Amino acid sequence: MMKTSGSFTLLLLLGFVSANETSESKPPSPPDLYAALRDLTASLVQLKADVATERDQLRAEVDQLNQQQQVQQVAFSASLLAESRGSTLGPLPTAMTLIFKNVQTNIGNAYSSTTGLFTAPVKGAYHFDWTTGAYGDHSHGSGAWLLKNSQKVFMAFEDQKDGFMTTSKGVTLLLEAGDVVSVLLLASGLAFDDYNHHTTFSGHLVFPM
Amino acid sequence: MMKTSGSFTLLLLLGFVSANETSESKPPSPPDLYAALRDLTASLVQLKADVATERDQLRAEVDQLNQQQQVQQVAFSASLLAESRGSTLGPLPTAMTLIFKNVQTNIGNAYSSTTGLFTAPVKGAYHFDWTTGAYGDHSHGSGAWLLKNSQKVFMAFEDQKDGFMTTSKGVTLLLEAGDVVSVLLLASGLAFDDYNHHTTFSGHLVFPM
Amino acid sequence: MMKTSGSFTLLLLLGFVSANETSESKPPSPPDLYAALRDLTASLVQLKADVATERDQLRAEVDQLNQQQQVQQVAFSASLLAESRGSTLGPLPTAMTLIFKNVQTNIGNAYSSTTGLFTAPVKGAYHFDWTTGAYGDHSHGSGAWLLKNSQKVFMAFEDQKDGFMTTSKGVTLLLEAGDVVSVLLLASGLAFDDYNHHTTFSGHLVFPM
Repeated sequence: MMKTSGSFTLLLLLGFVSANETSESKPPSPPDLYAALRDLTASLVQLKADVATERDQLRAEVDQLNQQQQVQQVAFSASLLAESRGSTLGPLPTAMTLIFKNVQTNIGNAYSSTTGLFTAPVKGAYHFDWTTGAYGDHSHGSGAWLLKNSQKVFMAFEDQKDGFMTTSKGVTLLLEAGDVVSVLLLASGLAFDDYNHHTTFSGHLVFPM
Repeated sequence: MMKTSGSFTLLLLLGFVSANETSESKPPSPPDLYAALRDLTASLVQLKADVATERDQLRAEVDQLNQQQQVQQVAFSASLLAESRGSTLGPLPTAMTLIFKNVQTNIGNAYSSTTGLFTAPVKGAYHFDWTTGAYGDHSHGSGAWLLKNSQKVFMAFEDQKDGFMTTSKGVTLLLEAGDVVSVLLLASGLAFDDYNHHTTFSGHLVFPM
Repeated sequence: MMKTSGSFTLLLLLGFVSANETSESKPPSPPDLYAALRDLTASLVQLKADVATERDQLRAEVDQLNQQQQVQQVAFSASLLAESRGSTLGPLPTAMTLIFKNVQTNIGNAYSSTTGLFTAPVKGAYHFDWTTGAYGDHSHGSGAWLLKNSQKVFMAFEDQKDGFMTTSKGVTLLLEAGDVVSVLLLASGLAFDDYNHHTTFSGHLVFPM
């Protein structure tokens, strides 16, 4: 905060030099001139320091706002199969992380198509959507959990005898930097994909915290 | 805006004191010195005022940007049942607000697990996802409206005879501060939930307005 | 960046005028006073220029941040039919762009209910949700692609013999300004809508780039 006492000193000084300027009868003594010069110089030094302090503070806040704008750029979208030929995954002996190979979007490179894992680059709120689909089957449904680290957050699941069954879900999670999110196919579940990209996984940072 | 006339005065002053300094033959009169000092002081007073005005304006805008960054932090996600034992809600005599008891995320505390209502803390665009699921039934489907205050915005609905049916939908709404959003189970609709969290409700602020 | 040499000159000047003020025995020569005045004036001119440079830089960045906040305001949501009477679209001879007539939200007017097309106003990450639903049919499913320009991104699809079938999907895409996103009903697909708004299309800008 700029000191108001500084402005007051300057106004006194302004009055002093104006008053002396008009009184021609009695010439002012040199020390008065030096005192005026000294006060003026001190005011300038003070203003320079105040300006620098305030500029540094504003600069730091603007830099942080710009940085927050940058880290918000995290978004991905992928489907299960890179090849276009149709194929059904499952049923499997155990639940299995789906590795979505066909990457459509990966801004910020937080999703890995090698492991199927999304790793949060910063603490924040993230939104995820996941969908699985498969041809109807008399013994198996289609479905998968969204996993936050090892926690099963929510399941998307559908079970039909025939036709084509599909299930989808959207969720918003608070993640710490380094938290890992993935899609875990149920052991008894089916997931079909082909060039139409039925089985998908998407996510983005909503806001950093 | 800083006045350019101020800079011009300073440049004239700079020329005046330089010119006087070199003319040793005729000593300057004291009033000239006072005039120079007065002009210099006036310039400093003006600069100080200009700096303060511009700083206050930038400060106000940076504060508002920081505040907008803060109010953007609204996001929630919840599933129907807090207990893990499976249970089906419905059919009921009338449509009923679903109260999602198992809160996964509630940044900003805008969702209430007592009432099932999300109340917009600020005007803005909000995104919502809702999913209901239930075991197939010969007489009833599974489905719910998203309600904005008392307006039925969109319905998510599916109806199967057997297996497990599920329906999901995402929507973006413009809400005023105080607007209330909830999920209304159809009177004839079923909603099942258990430790897998089939029936869910999520939302977040996309941007304030 | 403000020059530290300027501050150093001012401190020397402050010492000079203080030293001269106390030595009354030997009066200072007028040129010394002019030199002091000239240095002080030069310092003020320099400070004024530095302040203006730094202010312009901060102002430009704050303006850009405000502008980014503004362009983030893009969000829409619409359902297929404006009238409340139920009607099923399809099957058709060829795939057809769905024109969602009942506009619920259209912040930024990037969605056109005349053409069914969403046109990205700026480069950035965008999130889309789309849902189709229809009464179960022995020969046809319900489903649609999300189209980015002429590219079929992902399909949402479900096929049931009876009851009511529904399918939904969420995806995040990187779009250039001018890219067009729409929902393309499969040639063999059905889409039903009525006052309950089963078949919907929503989207919003996640962040500009």
